[in-house]
Amino acid sequence: MEVQQDALAKALEPINGDFDSLWITLAAVLVFFMQAGFTLVEVGFTRSKNSGNIIMKNVMDLCVGSIMFWAVGYAFMYGDTPILGGFFRSSSADQGYFLFSADDYWNLFFQTVFCATAATIVSGAVAGRTKFSTYLILSAVLTTFIYPFSGSWYWPFDDDAWLNVAGFIDFAGSSVVHAVGGGAALVAAIMVGPRIGKYVDGKAQVIPGHNMTYGALGVFILWLGWFGFNGGSQLAWGGDDSVSAAKVIINTNLAAAIGAVVALFFTWIRYGKADISMTLNGALAGLVGITAGCGAVDPIGALAIGFICGIAVVISIELIDKVFKIDDPVGAISVHGTCGFLGTVLVGLFATDGGLFYGGGAKQLWVQTYGSLAYIAWAAGTTFILLLILKYTIGLRVTEQEEVEGLDFHEHGTVCYPEHITKED
Amino acid sequence: MEVQQDALAKALEPINGDFDSLWITLAAVLVFFMQAGFTLVEVGFTRSKNSGNIIMKNVMDLCVGSIMFWAVGYAFMYGDTPILGGFFRSSSADQGYFLFSADDYWNLFFQTVFCATAATIVSGAVAGRTKFSTYLILSAVLTTFIYPFSGSWYWPFDDDAWLNVAGFIDFAGSSVVHAVGGGAALVAAIMVGPRIGKYVDGKAQVIPGHNMTYGALGVFILWLGWFGFNGGSQLAWGGDDSVSAAKVIINTNLAAAIGAVVALFFTWIRYGKADISMTLNGALAGLVGITAGCGAVDPIGALAIGFICGIAVVISIELIDKVFKIDDPVGAISVHGTCGFLGTVLVGLFATDGGLFYGGGAKQLWVQTYGSLAYIAWAAGTTFILLLILKYTIGLRVTEQEEVEGLDFHEHGTVCYPEHITKED
Amino acid sequence: MEVQQDALAKALEPINGDFDSLWITLAAVLVFFMQAGFTLVEVGFTRSKNSGNIIMKNVMDLCVGSIMFWAVGYAFMYGDTPILGGFFRSSSADQGYFLFSADDYWNLFFQTVFCATAATIVSGAVAGRTKFSTYLILSAVLTTFIYPFSGSWYWPFDDDAWLNVAGFIDFAGSSVVHAVGGGAALVAAIMVGPRIGKYVDGKAQVIPGHNMTYGALGVFILWLGWFGFNGGSQLAWGGDDSVSAAKVIINTNLAAAIGAVVALFFTWIRYGKADISMTLNGALAGLVGITAGCGAVDPIGALAIGFICGIAVVISIELIDKVFKIDDPVGAISVHGTCGFLGTVLVGLFATDGGLFYGGGAKQLWVQTYGSLAYIAWAAGTTFILLLILKYTIGLRVTEQEEVEGLDFHEHGTVCYPEHITKED
Repeated sequence: MEVQQDALAKALEPINGDFDSLWITLAAVLVFFMQAGFTLVEVGFTRSKNSGNIIMKNVMDLCVGSIMFWAVGYAFMYGDTPILGGFFRSSSADQGYFLFSADDYWNLFFQTVFCATAATIVSGAVAGRTKFSTYLILSAVLTTFIYPFSGSWYWPFDDDAWLNVAGFIDFAGSSVVHAVGGGAALVAAIMVGPRIGKYVDGKAQVIPGHNMTYGALGVFILWLGWFGFNGGSQLAWGGDDSVSAAKVIINTNLAAAIGAVVALFFTWIRYGKADISMTLNGALAGLVGITAGCGAVDPIGALAIGFICGIAVVISIELIDKVFKIDDPVGAISVHGTCGFLGTVLVGLFATDGGLFYGGGAKQLWVQTYGSLAYIAWAAGTTFILLLILKYTIGLRVTEQEEVEGLDFHEHGTVCYPEHITKED
Repeated sequence: MEVQQDALAKALEPINGDFDSLWITLAAVLVFFMQAGFTLVEVGFTRSKNSGNIIMKNVMDLCVGSIMFWAVGYAFMYGDTPILGGFFRSSSADQGYFLFSADDYWNLFFQTVFCATAATIVSGAVAGRTKFSTYLILSAVLTTFIYPFSGSWYWPFDDDAWLNVAGFIDFAGSSVVHAVGGGAALVAAIMVGPRIGKYVDGKAQVIPGHNMTYGALGVFILWLGWFGFNGGSQLAWGGDDSVSAAKVIINTNLAAAIGAVVALFFTWIRYGKADISMTLNGALAGLVGITAGCGAVDPIGALAIGFICGIAVVISIELIDKVFKIDDPVGAISVHGTCGFLGTVLVGLFATDGGLFYGGGAKQLWVQTYGSLAYIAWAAGTTFILLLILKYTIGLRVTEQEEVEGLDFHEHGTVCYPEHITKED
Repeated sequence: MEVQQDALAKALEPINGDFDSLWITLAAVLVFFMQAGFTLVEVGFTRSKNSGNIIMKNVMDLCVGSIMFWAVGYAFMYGDTPILGGFFRSSSADQGYFLFSADDYWNLFFQTVFCATAATIVSGAVAGRTKFSTYLILSAVLTTFIYPFSGSWYWPFDDDAWLNVAGFIDFAGSSVVHAVGGGAALVAAIMVGPRIGKYVDGKAQVIPGHNMTYGALGVFILWLGWFGFNGGSQLAWGGDDSVSAAKVIINTNLAAAIGAVVALFFTWIRYGKADISMTLNGALAGLVGITAGCGAVDPIGALAIGFICGIAVVISIELIDKVFKIDDPVGAISVHGTCGFLGTVLVGLFATDGGLFYGGGAKQLWVQTYGSLAYIAWAAGTTFILLLILKYTIGLRVTEQEEVEGLDFHEHGTVCYPEHITKED
């Protein structure tokens, strides 16, 4: 009977692999769709005169990211050759670059759509005044270098990445993806500067988005895609893996739900109105926050993380807008940066295995904190250097006239809604 | 060889479970997306001054539903302790409430998105004049009590639910979900009363929706999600289960298709125009109608049910609007209530095993009829009591000024399309 | 042990079938969603006064296609009885027509959504001036006859289709679906004639679409659906099939990405502006182009095909618009016809097994060319005959007044955005 059991186990092995690949592929398709979600959120939450420009930026994040990540990014991320003590990676000649090994294609596809996500986070923060050519270069550098090396710190297959070794927990990328995107967005928004009219006599003005329905549809699509983003990061299906993936999905859904509810009541009490865009951002905040810990916390922990992020995103948006006077039209820095950082750190409190509140001491909290800060510093630093170079070469901003009249007209020779009469016409 | 067969069967058992869980998870993701579909249909088919309010209601149905169904709804639905002769259920202390058993998480996820669907049906019927706080309470009660107990009559795992015992057939919830939502919507629409300007001198006025494209996209998304709604209700994949699920999907698609075609020609002949919103509602009518019988009828039965519902929805909308003078801005009562009831009852005629037209006598027809009526009565009754309480406490409607100027401005401090100039401006 | 291996293999066989059916079902759901993508692209790229009409055409393509393909199309495509030397097929009485065999339902579902796709391609090309009743008949003939017989030349299960025998390669239908749709669209656009105001003094006028955001969302949805369209055409999952499907998906994504990038830079250089609609069409061009070869080429080949199609679509749109003076409002002829043909032919160059550039000689190139031309000729010829009959019976176009005032108002008794004030008002 022993022989039989072995033969059985061996015969079933490829089946487990087939489950894994099917789940990863379908999860990647869901994450792919998030690109449409980001586009709609950014378009909806900004002025219509720049909608086409935002569309182009998001489409190009995906296109440039898909090509560059296949060409070199994957090799930088999963390469077998550590460089500079493992902070960077390269790949031996016969694998990785211009990936031809179809056995890695599920993972390539899954990681490609993650990479495009990281790039797209920046798009919203610099909306409405950034040169299209400048953005294209930033997007290419993000998908070619900044994100792949971020990934290489934690996600390579062989588990020798330095943050893996340190015991860092970031299941699906609150830090690796979102805080990286948020860190780049923060630096980019500061360096590009605020939109004309955003600050008058030092006071922040409200520049309302032009279509809340797009914003809401975008949030629904992002939430949908997040089931693939987090659930797919199990990277396996079958047996215990399926149970874990189900837990991840429930945690993800609960954190998003409570994030929206909390942001709703928090703003309702403060402003006297049930604020729509803050509620939508609350859901996103919960999603970003739970991304690190969705595999490590229980539903109570997920609700706690979502609760905290739902409040934090409102406070962060106000601070960045009114106190720090950084113009982030869609709140990307707060949603992805603040909540990405917070979500990562909170794993140190709520992880059922090792979290401070579950008797694990402060060690995990410490690893989570410096790991997340390392990611933000890496993304912010590299973005700073790149934009400094671009500032003194091709420039960061469009001209004043171009900005006032709209990027769609000047950069793309069109308008997004030509039949539409706006209140400015 | 016998031993070998047993060992094989035993070894393959977890694989069957992995198929089931994968299919249920993906089906649940599709059903989740229906929330976006409902939002778009309701936003598109109503005035733009209330779009943000509709978005908020739909987002909150999902958020509140997700939390409450996890906290208590699941225990009410699947609890092991019958109360009052099995009309209600509770759960022993170590399971069900605040569900921590990850083995149940696929089913929790699948049932959660069903629960949110039931709540959302009401949203459209009361659009444009209901207080947001009142709606939130109604939504919470629906997802916490009304729907979970509805489910407990028919869907618990152990098959001792009273309508299971009675032989009731409602595969994916024409009654359990849709007629329940429709029954609540009927009572709510009556009690809240019509929008200002809907009835002038006793004659129904047309208040056209503001964006048919949103409505159409919403219908496509709902149709898409319905493959998960109905197909996923097989709750299993593999062998005969996959064949059954495929039949369910084909039946679902055919019923939706014929529903739209019939509504198109029926209105084309009656009005002289190929009516867009009626055609879209015809597709939804077919989908709601086939939801009960998709596993029990053959394609001819599916086409018959879709055909009948495609005509019934047009007649029902007209009756409710013009004869009964109930203001249901999006036709939710007719689509979900009328067609949910009809679809359930028609299983008694078209079920290939037990249907009247297939030689099964009138017994099934009788069970279907009283089962569906019990659901409508339960939903209508509980909604009536709740709204009566709310009417004499916080009130049901916004003020006249708030309604005329729009719920978005007064309830949410914003407008959905601030750049837009409307014909009223 | 041999006996054991046999028993194992036999026991695992149904599991392989379960994987196949699950993948095909989910891929079909993704392809279904493409219907929404087509609708949004066509609505967004045309005038708002005809949006409702486009919605209705796309919904009806799906509805009529679903019913007719189930009733007779599937039997024409997969029938066991060759007619006229195998150019047509029928089915013996006990299978195929009004398909009742649930074992075939996955394939029926997958093929049904493909069929609806082929029909929908025509919708965009004849937008804004075609009678709705005329379009309905064309759509019904396309889904009932033209597409099913196209499919029968290449896709029947038993591999005796004449283009299978000839060694033709069209993995997911660059020709079978897209060039067929494009060929029908070409003839239809010519026969219906240009929209009023499109050509003034022999010069092509720009009639801008009314909503680029819809167009972009549509392209994202189409791209998403294409992972099912191409990946699902593997028609199997597990082992080598999964690796092949992953390669198909990576090739599909890379071709779309480079198509958009190339179209962007090509138009940027030529017009001095980063053109939005051309970039979006570039992505679609890459997708259509790679559809034939996605299983036969490597990533370099995929990038080459995407590159060529990204340029070709821009040139083709300009030629058709300005030189041939055929009014194709959304570029459907170029995207689906030109790139469908090109993508098919290019397999003859880039197929790693048999392509000219890979040492395979010119034989494959020749088969690809005449195979694709046969498809275009079939679709164009049958569409020509049908429209000629319709021209002299019910007519092809609406009246001048109806066209100027909009199809939505005259054909459907409504407008799509009734609150909206357009520049014409």
